[in-house]
Amino acid sequence: LDCPAEFLAFADRLADAAGEVVRRYFRQPVEVITKADKSPVTIADRETEKLLRSLVARTYPAHGLIGEEFGAERPEAEFVWIFDPIDGTKQFIAGRPLFGTLIGLLHGGRPLLGVIDHPALRERWIGAQGHPTRFQGQPAKTRACAELSLAVLGASSPHMFGTTEATAAFERVRKAAGLAIYGGDCYAYGLIASGFHDLVIEANNGIHDFLPLVPVIEGAGGMVTDWQGRALGLRSGDKVLAAGDQRMHEAALKLLAWN
Amino acid sequence: LDCPAEFLAFADRLADAAGEVVRRYFRQPVEVITKADKSPVTIADRETEKLLRSLVARTYPAHGLIGEEFGAERPEAEFVWIFDPIDGTKQFIAGRPLFGTLIGLLHGGRPLLGVIDHPALRERWIGAQGHPTRFQGQPAKTRACAELSLAVLGASSPHMFGTTEATAAFERVRKAAGLAIYGGDCYAYGLIASGFHDLVIEANNGIHDFLPLVPVIEGAGGMVTDWQGRALGLRSGDKVLAAGDQRMHEAALKLLAWN
Repeated sequence: LDCPAEFLAFADRLADAAGEVVRRYFRQPVEVITKADKSPVTIADRETEKLLRSLVARTYPAHGLIGEEFGAERPEAEFVWIFDPIDGTKQFIAGRPLFGTLIGLLHGGRPLLGVIDHPALRERWIGAQGHPTRFQGQPAKTRACAELSLAVLGASSPHMFGTTEATAAFERVRKAAGLAIYGGDCYAYGLIASGFHDLVIEANNGIHDFLPLVPVIEGAGGMVTDWQGRALGLRSGDKVLAAGDQRMHEAALKLLAWN
Repeated sequence: LDCPAEFLAFADRLADAAGEVVRRYFRQPVEVITKADKSPVTIADRETEKLLRSLVARTYPAHGLIGEEFGAERPEAEFVWIFDPIDGTKQFIAGRPLFGTLIGLLHGGRPLLGVIDHPALRERWIGAQGHPTRFQGQPAKTRACAELSLAVLGASSPHMFGTTEATAAFERVRKAAGLAIYGGDCYAYGLIASGFHDLVIEANNGIHDFLPLVPVIEGAGGMVTDWQGRALGLRSGDKVLAAGDQRMHEAALKLLAWN
C-alpha cells in the first residue's frame, strides 16, 4: 500500500500538536518518575501521548493505538498508530535538545508511515511507503559508504546493550567503524536518512522506539532491520540495525553475529 | 581583575563572526583531515580560527593568541585570547548541532572571560570574572545536587579516557551517578551552568578545550578543576572535572582518585 496523502498531512498535524506540549515542558522543572523497567518518565511524556491518542480517536475512531506510556487499544485494527511521545527522555531531563517525538502508522502490522520530530530543534523527518522521505520539507537521501573504517556509527549509549554478548557484538562494530557518537536516540536515525550517519546499532528498544523509524529510513534509501537482518514488525525483539548503504548493513550484520 | 565590559562586548562580536562561518559549512560536504593526534579537522575549523585571530589582532594587537589549529602568538602577553573554533568536530562532521565555538580570554594566565557558543543552535553562554554568567542574555545558575545517585553526568565519550586507570576512575563515578549522557562536548559544560547537568568528567583535552569554560561555570556558581581539584591554567594536564554543586565536586574527586 502506498500511504494516502491524507495520513501524511494528519501525521504532520499530530507532530505539530505534540511539539507544542513538549516545548512547554522542556527545561522547566518537571517531576521524573522511575518506571518498573528503571526508565524515566515525566508529565511531558504522558500529556503528549494523551493528546496524540485523543487526536487519532477523534479523527480515525476505527484505527488502533499503541503508545509507550498507555499501552495498546485495538492493536488488531487494519491501521494502527504507534507513539513514543518523548524518545530520549534522559536527554529531555538533562536539558539536551536531541530528544524526539516518534509517530508511526502501521498497516496490517507493517510500518506505513513514520515521523521523527524534534520539538526543541524544530526539525522533522517524515517518511511513508510510496513517498520520498522529507527533512524540513525537502527530500532526504542516505549517503554511500563503502568502508566500515569511514562509517559514522550512532547509538544512544554503549551501556544500553544489556547482555555481555550484545555488548561485545556492538564493540566489534564500534572498533571497526570510523567514528562512534553516542547520545543521539532517534536523532541518529534521522541523520542516517539525511546522509550524515552511516550506521545506528541499538538494543533494549520497544516497538514504539523503532517501528516509526522504518519508513523514514527506507524512504531515504536506507535499511533498518533487527540484528539478524529480519524486517521489523510488531513481534520484533529489542535490537535494531539501521544503515544508509547496503554494504554497511551487510558488514555490520557479520560483526554483530554470535553463535 | 573584574573583566572590563569592553571585552565582554568584543567576545560577543567574536562569537557572532565565528558563527557566521561555521553555519556556512555545517551539513555541507567538507573535507575531513586527520591530524597527527588522530583527531579530525575541517576547513571550517581553520577558517573560523583564522577569522578570530585576525579580529583580535586588528582590535587588540598587543594581546596574545592561542588556538587549537594555529598555535600560540605572544602567549606571555598580559591578555591572551584562546580559541577552539569547533569543539566537537566529530559532532560537526556527523551532522549533530551540539558542537560549539569556545572563546576565552586569559589575564596573567588565569581565565578572565569565556564564551561557549553553539552556532547551529544559536545558543550562547558567556561568563567573566565579576559578572554573572548569562545564557541567551539571561542569568544562568547551577543547581543544587546533594546525592551522586541523582546526578546527571556528562562526558563526550566513555572511550576518551586513554589509560586503564583513568577509564576505571570515570567508570566509578558513572556507576554511582544517576544518569550518564555522552556526546555533549562543550554543550555539557553549558548545561552545568544552566542547572541541567551536575557533573562533567573528561580527559585528553587541551587548554583550548577547557580554559574558556572556567568563567562560564564559575560565574554560574559551579566549579571546574583538574581531577586533583587544582585550578585550571596554562600548564594544566588533560583532565577536567566540572560540577554545579560543591558536594558533587567533592564526591567525584574521591571516586576519581587512584594511588
